[in-house]
Amino acid sequence: MRVVLRSKVLQSNEQAAVANRELFGKHGLAVINMMSSPGSGKTTILEQTARTLQGEVKIGVIEGDIQSTLDAERIASSGAEAVQINTEGACHLDASMVAAAVQELPMSELDLIVVENVGNLVCPAEFDLGEDARVIVLSVTEGNDKPLKYPVMFRQATAIVVNKVDLIEHTDFDRAALEQDIKDLNPRAQLFWVSARTGEGIGEWCEWLKRRVAIRRGSAAGV
Amino acid sequence: MRVVLRSKVLQSNEQAAVANRELFGKHGLAVINMMSSPGSGKTTILEQTARTLQGEVKIGVIEGDIQSTLDAERIASSGAEAVQINTEGACHLDASMVAAAVQELPMSELDLIVVENVGNLVCPAEFDLGEDARVIVLSVTEGNDKPLKYPVMFRQATAIVVNKVDLIEHTDFDRAALEQDIKDLNPRAQLFWVSARTGEGIGEWCEWLKRRVAIRRGSAAGV
Repeated sequence: MRVVLRSKVLQSNEQAAVANRELFGKHGLAVINMMSSPGSGKTTILEQTARTLQGEVKIGVIEGDIQSTLDAERIASSGAEAVQINTEGACHLDASMVAAAVQELPMSELDLIVVENVGNLVCPAEFDLGEDARVIVLSVTEGNDKPLKYPVMFRQATAIVVNKVDLIEHTDFDRAALEQDIKDLNPRAQLFWVSARTGEGIGEWCEWLKRRVAIRRGSAAGV
Repeated sequence: MRVVLRSKVLQSNEQAAVANRELFGKHGLAVINMMSSPGSGKTTILEQTARTLQGEVKIGVIEGDIQSTLDAERIASSGAEAVQINTEGACHLDASMVAAAVQELPMSELDLIVVENVGNLVCPAEFDLGEDARVIVLSVTEGNDKPLKYPVMFRQATAIVVNKVDLIEHTDFDRAALEQDIKDLNPRAQLFWVSARTGEGIGEWCEWLKRRVAIRRGSAAGV
């Protein structure tokens, strides 16, 4: 039987995250850790993002799932480079999984790596992957109470993408309450309102990604 | 620093679950462990259930959340007895948390206890709470691919409640594909199609709960 001490796990993750961050820095890569509940629409947002930024930003996607390669297949057909990690039961990605996956991507040809974490609003928050931004996707059909119920993750977010706004009129989602809760929890978080289905708001989100890529390119060139 | 061995955690959970099951059996209580992604509508289903079964089935609800008492307040106002567990970071409920919470409920007056687990399709699957049925709530807005992506949890389900069917026409949810995937993964699982908002299908779900309560009452009387 394999026994792993929790404190050791987090410590060794921290070391792997530092190594990832160095590697990404060396390649001038912007790296996003994308987290959400299952079914919030991360993959559909990424498909739209890859199509919108085609020819401008070269994207690699690391797909984290407990099982199946459904998401990586979808991403690959949208034109981005895709690698699938199957966690075989684990409820989150860790930095060493990302370190292994990234070897399968042509890093020197890429501008941006998006890591699509396992669908889970709790456990991934504890594991630094070496990313430079954390993005949470929340769909309006999940309700506006999620930041108060999962504050650890929402407090860490660099950006929050509220998806499925095309469905908002069919739900009880309170947009003003969500904005107030984010303001209280994490006022610096960038907030985007999008519909990956209709394309609404995807342009603004892609502009933000382009700015992050430009900053990273600049700092890599400056070294 | 507190270090907990994973194997010990699961072993001690197993012991606590056995004790819970004995206690519930002694009181002739049906106990449901309800699991889902965040925002699938578990609490709204429970509010509707409590209203529908008022006067027929006495329900106690144990609300599991990382933080906040939002859900317990909602349940209490629908007429059921409610206790809130705050897991303070933990991504699932365990049997000892349920053992503590259940002491706050008037067990001898109840017929049914519903444990609303932390919103998470991964980690709660590993922790037996002493329940006699596991129910998964999946909302159509999450997409029909969830059983293939989270097979451990779906394989264990006694029943699967597909919620938000009032929104199905606004989504790409493939009802036939979901039914086929459930048939392949877990053919004995009972499947309900409901809308907690409109009340559609709630009657059938409540009938199923009533049958479970009747069976439990019968077996407690037979002892």
